[in-house]
Amino acid sequence: MVSSIPLFLMGCGGVGRQLLRHIISCRPIHSKQGVRLRVVGVSDSKSMVAVPDILTSEFHDDFLLKLCKLKSSGASLHELANSGECQVFSGQEIAMKVVDFASTLRELSGLTLVDCSASAQTIAMLSELVNLERCCVVLANKKPLTSSLEYYDKLVSQPRRIRHESTVGAGLPVISTINRIISSGDPIFRIIGSLSGTLGYVMSEVESGRPFSQVVTAAKSLGYTEPDPRDDLSGMDVARKALILARLLGHRINLDSIKVESLYPVEMGPDVMPLEEFLVNGLPILDNDIKKRIDIASSNGNVLRYVCLIEESRCEVGIQEVAKDSPLGRLKGSDNVLEIYSRCYREQPLVIQGAGAGNDTTAAGVLADILDIQDLFRH
Amino acid sequence: MVSSIPLFLMGCGGVGRQLLRHIISCRPIHSKQGVRLRVVGVSDSKSMVAVPDILTSEFHDDFLLKLCKLKSSGASLHELANSGECQVFSGQEIAMKVVDFASTLRELSGLTLVDCSASAQTIAMLSELVNLERCCVVLANKKPLTSSLEYYDKLVSQPRRIRHESTVGAGLPVISTINRIISSGDPIFRIIGSLSGTLGYVMSEVESGRPFSQVVTAAKSLGYTEPDPRDDLSGMDVARKALILARLLGHRINLDSIKVESLYPVEMGPDVMPLEEFLVNGLPILDNDIKKRIDIASSNGNVLRYVCLIEESRCEVGIQEVAKDSPLGRLKGSDNVLEIYSRCYREQPLVIQGAGAGNDTTAAGVLADILDIQDLFRH
Repeated sequence: MVSSIPLFLMGCGGVGRQLLRHIISCRPIHSKQGVRLRVVGVSDSKSMVAVPDILTSEFHDDFLLKLCKLKSSGASLHELANSGECQVFSGQEIAMKVVDFASTLRELSGLTLVDCSASAQTIAMLSELVNLERCCVVLANKKPLTSSLEYYDKLVSQPRRIRHESTVGAGLPVISTINRIISSGDPIFRIIGSLSGTLGYVMSEVESGRPFSQVVTAAKSLGYTEPDPRDDLSGMDVARKALILARLLGHRINLDSIKVESLYPVEMGPDVMPLEEFLVNGLPILDNDIKKRIDIASSNGNVLRYVCLIEESRCEVGIQEVAKDSPLGRLKGSDNVLEIYSRCYREQPLVIQGAGAGNDTTAAGVLADILDIQDLFRH
Repeated sequence: MVSSIPLFLMGCGGVGRQLLRHIISCRPIHSKQGVRLRVVGVSDSKSMVAVPDILTSEFHDDFLLKLCKLKSSGASLHELANSGECQVFSGQEIAMKVVDFASTLRELSGLTLVDCSASAQTIAMLSELVNLERCCVVLANKKPLTSSLEYYDKLVSQPRRIRHESTVGAGLPVISTINRIISSGDPIFRIIGSLSGTLGYVMSEVESGRPFSQVVTAAKSLGYTEPDPRDDLSGMDVARKALILARLLGHRINLDSIKVESLYPVEMGPDVMPLEEFLVNGLPILDNDIKKRIDIASSNGNVLRYVCLIEESRCEVGIQEVAKDSPLGRLKGSDNVLEIYSRCYREQPLVIQGAGAGNDTTAAGVLADILDIQDLFRH
C-alpha cells in the first residue's frame, strides 16, 4: 500500500529549494516507508509552474534540480516557460489555479500545500484551501498563523490537516511535542524559551563582558543576523513565534497584544535612522544600559536572556533574568531552548534544545511534517 | 467527522490504570478533536474482561473506574464476572479471543491494542495481530521490541500502525523525534543519553562525595529504585531501551549483543546473595572502586554518567566519562536526557530532557501515541 502525496510548494527561497533537494535525496527512505512525494507545482512571489496534467503527472527530479539552480541564480520561474515541461501562471492567476488544482485532486488523492514563503499573500488562499476535503497544509511561513484570529481559526479548523513544526525552532520538535502533551490531557501552565539564535548568541556573549555594540556587529559580520540587525533586535520575529505557541495553548490573542521589548529605542528605528548610522553611532549608546542590567542580574546570581514567556494570561517577549544553572541560563551560542512546565513536568521542565535556524534544519522539519500526514493519503 | 478508536488494554498495573483515568478525564479534549476512545476490553496477567458485544458496545467510564479500584486493591479481574457488564475469559482463551475481536473489528473500524504490561507473554499475539488490516499496536511494554529480531521485524512491518513512545523516556518525545529525523533524511550518527532516572540520580549524587552504598540505600528508601535495587544497577533496563533505539536506527542486533556494565559483580547477583546481605555487606565493598573512578574523571575535568551510547556499530550501556558542561554532565536528580547527533545537529546535539519515569508521564505518552494514529480510524 503506497501513500502518494501530491505537493504544491509555495516559496522557493533557501528553505523551499532545500526542501526540494531533501525530497529528492530521501526517495529511497520514503519508498521503503511506502510513501511517494509527487511535486506537482512550485511558485515564487510572481510566478507559478505546474505539471501539464495535475491528475497524472509530476515533476521529474532533474526538472526540480534545474528549478533550484535557476532560483539560486536569482532568476524568475517564468524562465521555465519555454522548457515544454510545465504550465506557467502569473499574478492573480496563481491563487485561482491552485484552488482549481486542489478541487480537481480532492476526489482522487488530495493535495498538500507547503508554504515555505515568508509572505502574507498566501494567507487568504490557504485558509480557503484548508476547507477543501483532503487538502492539507504544511507551513514554515509564520505569517498565516500570526495574522487575525479569524484566519487562524479557519486554518486550524481541521487540526489533523495542518502541520507547522518549522514555524518555531526550525526542525526542533516543539509543536509536535506541545500537541502530544495537549492530546494526553497534561495541562501546560508555563512555557519559557530562547527562540532566536541571533538574540541567544548576543545575550550569552555580552554576559562575558563584551560590549553589546561589539557583539551585534560581530554577529552581523558572521552572518548570524538579518542584513539590518534591527530586524532581529526588534524582537518581532520572536513575538510571532510566541504568538504561535500561545495560540496553540488556547490564548485568544493577536500579535499586538504581546508585550514586546525592542533592544533599540524608537528613535533608532529603521524609519528614522539609516542602517550605517545605527551601526556606528546608535548601537554604542546602548552599551551602558545593557551592561548595567547584566551587572544587576549577576549580583542576583542570574543571567539575562531574551526570552518568550507564556504563563496564564501572560505572553511576553523580552529580556528576563533567569537562574544561571537553568537550561536557559546555561545556553551558549545560537541554540534555541524551550522549557515546558505541565502537570507531568511540574518542578523540572521538559526541555528541548538544539539548532533552531538554518535552511537545512527548517526544510527537514517541513519534510517530517509532510510524512506525518501520510495516513490521510493512504488508499 | 469523528474517529472512533476501539481500544483493548493489556496490563492494568499502575500505568494501565493511569491510562484509563487519563482517557476518562480527557474525553472533553478528545471530543473537541473529533476523537472517541472506546475501551472494549481489558486484561491482566490471568483474566480478561470484554464488552458483551464488541461491535456496538463499550465500557462505561464508571465501570472502568470500578475496574481501576478493584485492581488497585490487588484483586483479580475475575471478580467482575458477576457484574453483568462484561464477558470474562481466562488463560489460553485470552489470546484467542483477542484475535477473534480484532478479526471481527477489522472490517468495521479496526482495533488498537495497548500493551501496558511488563510481560513477554504478549509478544506472540501482538506480532500476529499487527498483520491484521486496521489493527494498531501501542506499547509501553519494552519486551515485545527487545525479543528476537524475527518478532521485531513482524511488529514493525507496518510502521504506521505501531507506536511505542513510552518504552524509552516515558512520555518524553524520544521515539517520535527520532522518527521525524529519520523521515526527513537527516542521518543520526550518535545517540548518547541517561535513560534511567535511578542511575541518573545515583551518578549525580556520588559526584558530590557521598559513598555509593549510601546513595543507593537512600534511593531505595525514597522509592526511586525497584524493590531489589540490583534490578536497576544491573543496567538491563537501560540495555532494553538502548536496543529499542539502536534497532530504530537500523542496527540488526539483539539484547545479548549489547555490552552492558553491571554496577555490582556477579558474585553479588540476586541468585547468589540475598537482598539484605547485598544491602548491608555487598554494597559498601563497591564504594572504593566508584570513588576512584570519580576521582580520575574529575582530574580530567569530567564527571561519570551511566549512559547508553549508540554510534556506528557500537551499542553500549555503562559508566562513561562525560564533559562536565555537556547536557549529560550537567544532569542532576532523576531526569532523563538524550543527546542526538545528526547532519542537522552535528556540533551541538538536539537535546531532550525531563522526567523519564512515573505512571502519570508514561500513561500520558501512551495516550499521545493513541491520538497519533487517529487518522487510520477516520471514516
